[in-house]
Amino acid sequence: MNAAEDAALTILRVDGSQAAIDRAIACEVPVAIEIDGFGYAVMMMTPQDFGDFATGFLLTERLIDAPADILDIDPFETERGWIVRVALVARCRARIHDRVRHRTSDTSCGLCGISGLEQVARPVTYRAARPTAPAPALFAALATLRAHQPLNVQTGAVHAAAACDAAGTILAVREDVGRHNALDKLIGHLAGATVPAFILVTSRISYEMVDKALVIGAPILVGISAPTTLALSHARTHDLTLVALARPDAMLVAHDPFGWFTTDPE
Amino acid sequence: MNAAEDAALTILRVDGSQAAIDRAIACEVPVAIEIDGFGYAVMMMTPQDFGDFATGFLLTERLIDAPADILDIDPFETERGWIVRVALVARCRARIHDRVRHRTSDTSCGLCGISGLEQVARPVTYRAARPTAPAPALFAALATLRAHQPLNVQTGAVHAAAACDAAGTILAVREDVGRHNALDKLIGHLAGATVPAFILVTSRISYEMVDKALVIGAPILVGISAPTTLALSHARTHDLTLVALARPDAMLVAHDPFGWFTTDPE
Repeated sequence: MNAAEDAALTILRVDGSQAAIDRAIACEVPVAIEIDGFGYAVMMMTPQDFGDFATGFLLTERLIDAPADILDIDPFETERGWIVRVALVARCRARIHDRVRHRTSDTSCGLCGISGLEQVARPVTYRAARPTAPAPALFAALATLRAHQPLNVQTGAVHAAAACDAAGTILAVREDVGRHNALDKLIGHLAGATVPAFILVTSRISYEMVDKALVIGAPILVGISAPTTLALSHARTHDLTLVALARPDAMLVAHDPFGWFTTDPE
Repeated sequence: MNAAEDAALTILRVDGSQAAIDRAIACEVPVAIEIDGFGYAVMMMTPQDFGDFATGFLLTERLIDAPADILDIDPFETERGWIVRVALVARCRARIHDRVRHRTSDTSCGLCGISGLEQVARPVTYRAARPTAPAPALFAALATLRAHQPLNVQTGAVHAAAACDAAGTILAVREDVGRHNALDKLIGHLAGATVPAFILVTSRISYEMVDKALVIGAPILVGISAPTTLALSHARTHDLTLVALARPDAMLVAHDPFGWFTTDPE
């Protein structure tokens, strides 16, 4: 299987008439993350950038503190999908055991729903910084984003997450059929090196997208679609500047804790 | 908390100028599903139609065979989110135990990734039937869909799943911040009563969307966006007719096992 997609499909277009057209299809495969022998999660994913993904996923799951905590990442293909085997330093291995033990004990504690809900709200010590990118920089990035989405141009079915500097230059983009995966891949790619001025995502802004943006330390999260209530409250708690329904010529500032986008802060 | 959304937000619109506007935000809360005392899953969800959701989720997870297998559904709100407590008939309870035991043993089997991947590909005995709805019926449903998405009209951030008859009349719609949840809610609403001529979803067509459409027995799945490779192969295996990138005036027939949309089957 090649990195990204392997299916070109002849498809019937139906409108007033009918015509056969060729179209590329986005590749989606099950990918199991196995950490030091523990099956941790299975995700449906675009099979590329496994190293970036594993690094970003481990960071956003709070299973590691830095990429240096990873000893080895070994992705390999099986008949049913991909397995990404990860080895961590001993210090982090304890977290995996705790997380798995917690998950196991959930099955008979009688308060499962509640403990499940508690696990969702992960502690965040991060606070977002004051933005540095002005509105025109966001508009500039939005105007060039499509040129950085080769998979989406071909398939029309994959999300992108982009890291941008304060001038609106797109520094890096990762694409995936899943928006969480795209952002995890981007975070894994950036980790330990660049903190972007803002992150741009082609999706709705849900709780987890805010949470991941906080992990990487971006001051602004920009989404093409709208935020949810939980995303907004998470952004409020941690001073993340949130921009929604962003287009190359207009955007909605959903949360502006530093008054960055307000011309007259009084 | 009211059924659907409780947040009206005053938001800053930035384009050439700036203006404060009011906007409704889609409500997203963590919802834990607890089955006979076992914490089964936590989902981020629009908190409405819990009964439909639980029924549809249990059906699409293959934890029950029919709605009659559910003895009780009890949703209640906690400080951290909602818990939906479900009681099943004894026959189904064994499946929960098996599933949970399997999940637990995964944590130390050494083949975790592989057994995780095996769990993803759930056995489907269903085969989709020959379609009954012609292309104009699909176009008719697509043209009226927006009028059936009250939450999305307000918030611009929620998906919909609609059940339609062979004439293209929309019989039922469910909305949710999550596309899987929207379809599970619709399936729970329909379960045991109507088999729709087609299901319409406002999202990408991933593997799980095909899988859920098969569970309800719909002959056609219509998506506003594109299918993935895995979705397409799942549809091919089970003879589900698949229509993608569907608009009120044009659509792509991605899989047509009965030659239903081909004017000249020869």
